Amino acid sequence: MTTGETSLLVSKPWLRPMVSVEHFRVKRRMTAAGVVRAMRKMGLGAGELGRAYDALNEMRLDGKCTKFMGVAGAMIPAGLRSLIAHMAKRGYMDALVLTGAGVTHDLMEGLGERPSLLRSDRTDEELLSKGVHRIYDIAVKRRSYTKLESFVKRVLRSMPPGSYGTYRVIEALGSAIKDRGSIVKQCLSSHIPVYSPGIVDSVLGSQIWARSEGRVKINVLEDMNHIVDKAWSSKRAGALFLGGGVPKHFILLAAHTAGRPLSYAVQITMDRPEHGGLSGAKLQEAVSWRKLLPGAKRADLICDASIALPLLVAALEERNRHKR
Amino acid sequence: MTTGETSLLVSKPWLRPMVSVEHFRVKRRMTAAGVVRAMRKMGLGAGELGRAYDALNEMRLDGKCTKFMGVAGAMIPAGLRSLIAHMAKRGYMDALVLTGAGVTHDLMEGLGERPSLLRSDRTDEELLSKGVHRIYDIAVKRRSYTKLESFVKRVLRSMPPGSYGTYRVIEALGSAIKDRGSIVKQCLSSHIPVYSPGIVDSVLGSQIWARSEGRVKINVLEDMNHIVDKAWSSKRAGALFLGGGVPKHFILLAAHTAGRPLSYAVQITMDRPEHGGLSGAKLQEAVSWRKLLPGAKRADLICDASIALPLLVAALEERNRHKR
Amino acid sequence: MTTGETSLLVSKPWLRPMVSVEHFRVKRRMTAAGVVRAMRKMGLGAGELGRAYDALNEMRLDGKCTKFMGVAGAMIPAGLRSLIAHMAKRGYMDALVLTGAGVTHDLMEGLGERPSLLRSDRTDEELLSKGVHRIYDIAVKRRSYTKLESFVKRVLRSMPPGSYGTYRVIEALGSAIKDRGSIVKQCLSSHIPVYSPGIVDSVLGSQIWARSEGRVKINVLEDMNHIVDKAWSSKRAGALFLGGGVPKHFILLAAHTAGRPLSYAVQITMDRPEHGGLSGAKLQEAVSWRKLLPGAKRADLICDASIALPLLVAALEERNRHKR
Amino acid sequence: MTTGETSLLVSKPWLRPMVSVEHFRVKRRMTAAGVVRAMRKMGLGAGELGRAYDALNEMRLDGKCTKFMGVAGAMIPAGLRSLIAHMAKRGYMDALVLTGAGVTHDLMEGLGERPSLLRSDRTDEELLSKGVHRIYDIAVKRRSYTKLESFVKRVLRSMPPGSYGTYRVIEALGSAIKDRGSIVKQCLSSHIPVYSPGIVDSVLGSQIWARSEGRVKINVLEDMNHIVDKAWSSKRAGALFLGGGVPKHFILLAAHTAGRPLSYAVQITMDRPEHGGLSGAKLQEAVSWRKLLPGAKRADLICDASIALPLLVAALEERNRHKR
Repeated sequence: MTTGETSLLVSKPWLRPMVSVEHFRVKRRMTAAGVVRAMRKMGLGAGELGRAYDALNEMRLDGKCTKFMGVAGAMIPAGLRSLIAHMAKRGYMDALVLTGAGVTHDLMEGLGERPSLLRSDRTDEELLSKGVHRIYDIAVKRRSYTKLESFVKRVLRSMPPGSYGTYRVIEALGSAIKDRGSIVKQCLSSHIPVYSPGIVDSVLGSQIWARSEGRVKINVLEDMNHIVDKAWSSKRAGALFLGGGVPKHFILLAAHTAGRPLSYAVQITMDRPEHGGLSGAKLQEAVSWRKLLPGAKRADLICDASIALPLLVAALEERNRHKR
Repeated sequence: MTTGETSLLVSKPWLRPMVSVEHFRVKRRMTAAGVVRAMRKMGLGAGELGRAYDALNEMRLDGKCTKFMGVAGAMIPAGLRSLIAHMAKRGYMDALVLTGAGVTHDLMEGLGERPSLLRSDRTDEELLSKGVHRIYDIAVKRRSYTKLESFVKRVLRSMPPGSYGTYRVIEALGSAIKDRGSIVKQCLSSHIPVYSPGIVDSVLGSQIWARSEGRVKINVLEDMNHIVDKAWSSKRAGALFLGGGVPKHFILLAAHTAGRPLSYAVQITMDRPEHGGLSGAKLQEAVSWRKLLPGAKRADLICDASIALPLLVAALEERNRHKR
Repeated sequence: MTTGETSLLVSKPWLRPMVSVEHFRVKRRMTAAGVVRAMRKMGLGAGELGRAYDALNEMRLDGKCTKFMGVAGAMIPAGLRSLIAHMAKRGYMDALVLTGAGVTHDLMEGLGERPSLLRSDRTDEELLSKGVHRIYDIAVKRRSYTKLESFVKRVLRSMPPGSYGTYRVIEALGSAIKDRGSIVKQCLSSHIPVYSPGIVDSVLGSQIWARSEGRVKINVLEDMNHIVDKAWSSKRAGALFLGGGVPKHFILLAAHTAGRPLSYAVQITMDRPEHGGLSGAKLQEAVSWRKLLPGAKRADLICDASIALPLLVAALEERNRHKR
Repeated sequence: MTTGETSLLVSKPWLRPMVSVEHFRVKRRMTAAGVVRAMRKMGLGAGELGRAYDALNEMRLDGKCTKFMGVAGAMIPAGLRSLIAHMAKRGYMDALVLTGAGVTHDLMEGLGERPSLLRSDRTDEELLSKGVHRIYDIAVKRRSYTKLESFVKRVLRSMPPGSYGTYRVIEALGSAIKDRGSIVKQCLSSHIPVYSPGIVDSVLGSQIWARSEGRVKINVLEDMNHIVDKAWSSKRAGALFLGGGVPKHFILLAAHTAGRPLSYAVQITMDRPEHGGLSGAKLQEAVSWRKLLPGAKRADLICDASIALPLLVAALEERNRHKR
C-alpha cells in the first residue's frame, strides 16, 4: 500500500468508502473554485489538490484553530509576494514562518527593488560580471542587497541594544517599510508574528551580523518561546506548508511542544520521501511524532507551489458563493 | 546556465529581454484563464504554465499546423477521460497517441466499468483477494477486464482476417462502443486517428493476442506509415505531451521522419532529465535531433498532468473572451 | 505507513522484527561486495541497495526461476553496454526486453560507432548544425544512424519475406554483427531472446519500416506468445528492471499471463509514484495485479541505474568468495 | 543546453574536448575505487559520481584549502554516523555544519540509544502508541529523547551563564559524551568546529530552550563570525554537501562573506531545481552569487547520499594505492 492511499485514508477516517472517479468536465468560463472542486473526485494529484482545498477551507472556518503558514524556497521572488500578503490580510494565518531569504526578498521589494525573469541565454559567469544573481530563472540584482544593507543598518541603529527573537527584529524592519504590498508590513498591521529561526543563514542574517556592531543580538530561543505560546493560545492548530526546510519543522515542533498536534495540515512540495529528508516526508509520518493528529484533515500535494497556491487561494476566495 | 533559462530563452527568441516579475494578484471570482494569465510573468513553474498556455493557444489557432497529442500514464482512469474527449471534439488535436493501457481504460469505461478512488487502508494483498487492481490511489476491478475481453473477442470476430495497424484495430473497437463519452469513439467521429504502437504491451494487447486466433495480426509499421503521412499533410506540426513514454517518442519520430520538426511543443511531466530517460528529457534536447525547431514555441511544465491539463484547457476554452 | 515500510515489510515476511541500524564502517581496500553488504542494515536507499543485492543473489542461485531483465532509458550509450552483455554471458538473465532505442544503440556500437561525452558548452542548435544528437550529456553522431541504416537494409534483404516477432528480427540483426561486445550478439550465443515490443517507436523501427519494402512485417503478438512460453517454462519467474516503460510492463504482463507472478523483483528507477505512471509505481502495487507474489523478495531502489547496476553486479560477481 | 552539460563544462574548463564513452567493465574482486574510477568516462549519474570522486580527491590533497562539510537530512540515523566521524578523523573536513536534528541523532547514539530499521507493517498510529518515532523506514524511540533531555540539562548546568554560538554549546555537549564513535566527540578531538545555526529548529534546540532556565542563550551571529574566520584562514575553500537546507546555504554564505568562493564543490542530493529551492539548485547557480568560482571543480550528484557517500569514501581511502 503506498503513501498515497494511506495519506488518503488510514489517515482520513471521515472519508466515505470507495467512490467512483468523477471525470473532470470543462464548462464555459470556469472559475478557480469550479476547477478545483471538479477535481475532488479525481485520482492522483488532482484529487489531492481537491483535498487540499477542503482541508484549507475547513481550517479557515475553524474559529478555534491557530493557523500557521511556513514558506521555504524562492516563492516570494517567483511572484507569490502579493498573494501571501493578501492571505495575511484575509485571515489565512495567525503566524508565519519564513526562511531568512524569504524575509530578505520581501524587504528588498519593499525598498523598490524588484526581481526579474531571466530572458537571455547568459551564463552564470556573465550574470556574475553584470552583478545579477540567479535563482533558477529569476534574476536579483546585487545592488538590491546593497540597498537592503543600508536600510538594515539604519533600523538596527534605532533599536535599543539587547538580545531579540527574530520576530522582533523582523517587526522593527517591517515597521520601517512603507510599501503596503510587503508581507512583513501586512503581518505587522494584522498582528501576525513573522518568525525566521534560520535567519542567520541568509544575506539579511549576515548583514545583521555585520551591522549590529554587537548591539543587537539574536536569541532564537525567544522565537521558540513565542511560537509555542501562539500554539497554546487556542484549542487546535493547523498549518499550510510551502516546501519544507526550517519553516516546516519549526511549526511541527511548536505544535508538538505546545501539546497541539496539527488538526489540519496541507503540504505543497516537490521533494520526495525515500531519502529521509523532512522536506519530502509525507505528513503522515508526523503522526508518529505526535506533531499531527491521527485524524487530521490533510493533503500531501506534490506540486510546484507557484502553481498550486494561486489556484487554491483564488478558489478559496470564492467559498461564500460556493456553499457545500 | 540551467535548463530553466535555456528552455526559456536560447530557445524562445521571440521573447523580450529581462522583464520584472509580476506578482500574482488574486481577484474576486477569478476564472481559470484569469489565474493562468496572471502567472505569465511569474518565475518557476507558474511562469512555465503561462508559457504552456500561450504555446497551446497559438498552436490551436494555427490553421497550417497538424496537432498531435500524446498521453502516457494513468491519466484516463484518474479523471481526464471526458476532458481528452472534449479536446478531440473541440479541435485540440488531429492525431492522438495512447499507451495500450490508455486505450484499455477508455474502452472499459465505454462498457460501463468505472474506476474508483481507494478510500480504505487495504493492503495490496487484500485488494488482490477482492479482485481489485491498484493504480496508485485508483482502483480498477478485475471483472472490468473480463468484460473487456468478451467485447474484444466479439469485435475481432467481425474483422476480416489480415494484418492491421493499431489505429485500425482501435477504430474497429471504437465503432463498437456506444458511450458518447469515449475518447476513441469521439476521435472516430472527429476523424482523428488513435495510434497505440505499444499496444501489445497492455492487457488489451494480450487479449488481442489471445482472442484473434491468428486471424488478426498487428502491423505497427502501418501506424508509422500513417502518422508520418499525417505529419506531412500540413506545413507545420505541434504537440502536447502528457508524460513521456512511447507516445512522446512516436510523435517526435514521426515529426522528424516527415521533415516537420515541431513548431510548438508543450510537455507536462514529473520525470527528471539527469538519468537520461526520454520521458524526463527537456524539450530542447529534441532540437539536436531535428525533432523540434530551434525557434519552436514551447514549455517544459514540471507538474502532475491531472492538475495542469484541466486548468490549461479550462483557460483555453475562454480564449474568445480574453483577446490578447 | 509509507511505501518505504511496506515495500520493506508487509511484503517481506521473511524479514526479522525490528533490528538496530548498523552504521557503515569503511575499511582498507573495501571491495564492491564489502561496500554493498555493509549497507544491508542501513536505512533509506542504502538499505534498499542491500536488499536489491540479496534479492538478485537469491534469484541468480534459484535454478527453477526464469530470469527476466528489462532495460529502459539511455543506459547502453551511458556506458552499461559491456556490463549488460557480461550479465547475459554470466547467466543473470534468460530473456531480455529492450526499448527500440536500446537495440539501436547496441547495434550502432557493434558497427563501430561510439557515443561521446559532451565536453563543451555548445547549444542544441550548434549540435544540430554539427550533426550531433544529444542524450542529456551524451553525444551520438547522426552519421552513426546512416551507417546503421545500410546495415539494417542489408540484413532485411537477407530475410525471407514474412511477418516476424521483434525477437526474430533482432536475432537476424545480431547474427550479422561481428563485435563480440554486443549485447544482442552475446544474447544470441547464450540463447537469450531479446524482445523489443516497442521497436517501431525508434530509429531502428523507422528504418525497418523504410527499408523492408513491405517484405518484412513485424508481428509483436508473436513476441507476447514467445515470452509467455518463456515464463511458463519454469516454476518461478523473477525480474530486474532498469527504469520502467515498455520493458517493465511487458515483463510483468508476461509473468501474469503465464501464471507466474514474480517471486523476485528489483526495480532501479528515478521516477516517482504519486502521478500514477507505471515506471515510477512501487513494485508492491503489482501484487494487486497478480504480477508479483505477495511474499516476493524485492527491492525498490531509487537510484540512477548507471550508478547502482555496476556496483551491484561487481558485488554479485564476488559472491563465491563471500559466503553468507 | 541542459544543466547536465553546463555543470559538466562551461564550468569545467580544465576538461578535455569530446571523449568517447568508456563502458563499465566488471572485473574479479573490484574495489570501491575500481568501481568509481571505471565510471569516470561514463555518461549520466555514473560520470558525475566519477567527477565527484576526482573533485573530492583533489580537494583533500589541497593543503591550502579549508574544507567544509554540510549534512542535512536523516543521514546519521540512516547509518552514516561512523563514516562521517571517520571522515573527521581522516582530515576530510576542517569545519562541519549539521542540522539540529543531526546533532540530536549523534548525541542520542552517544548516550547508547540506537535507531532501528522498521521491520513491520505498523501504521504511524501504532508507532505513536508504542512510543516510536518514524523517519521514513527508520525508528527512533521516544525514550531516547527523554534520555537526551536529562543529559542536555546536566551539561547546560555546567556552563557559565551567557550567550553562546551553537558551536560552543555543541563543544560542551560533545566533551560530555564518552562514546568515541560520536561525530561531535571526534570533531572536538580533531579541532573541527561543528556549527548548527538552525539548532533551535530541533528537539535539541527546544530542550536547550526548556532547560537553560535563561542562563544559556544562543547567539547564532557568533557562529557566522567564527565560520567566516575559518574560511578566511586559508587561500581556498571547498565543500561537500549532503543534501541542502541550512548547512548548504550557511557554508555558501560564509565562503561568500569571507571572499573565498568555493574552489571545489560536490553536492549529493535528490532534490530538483525547477521549483527554485536552494537545496535542489545546481551548484553552477552559485557562480552568479560569487559563492563558487567559475572554474571550480565540482559535481552535482543526483543520488541518495546513503548510497553515494560510502562508495565515494571507500574509494577515496584507497587513493594512495591508486596513483593517477
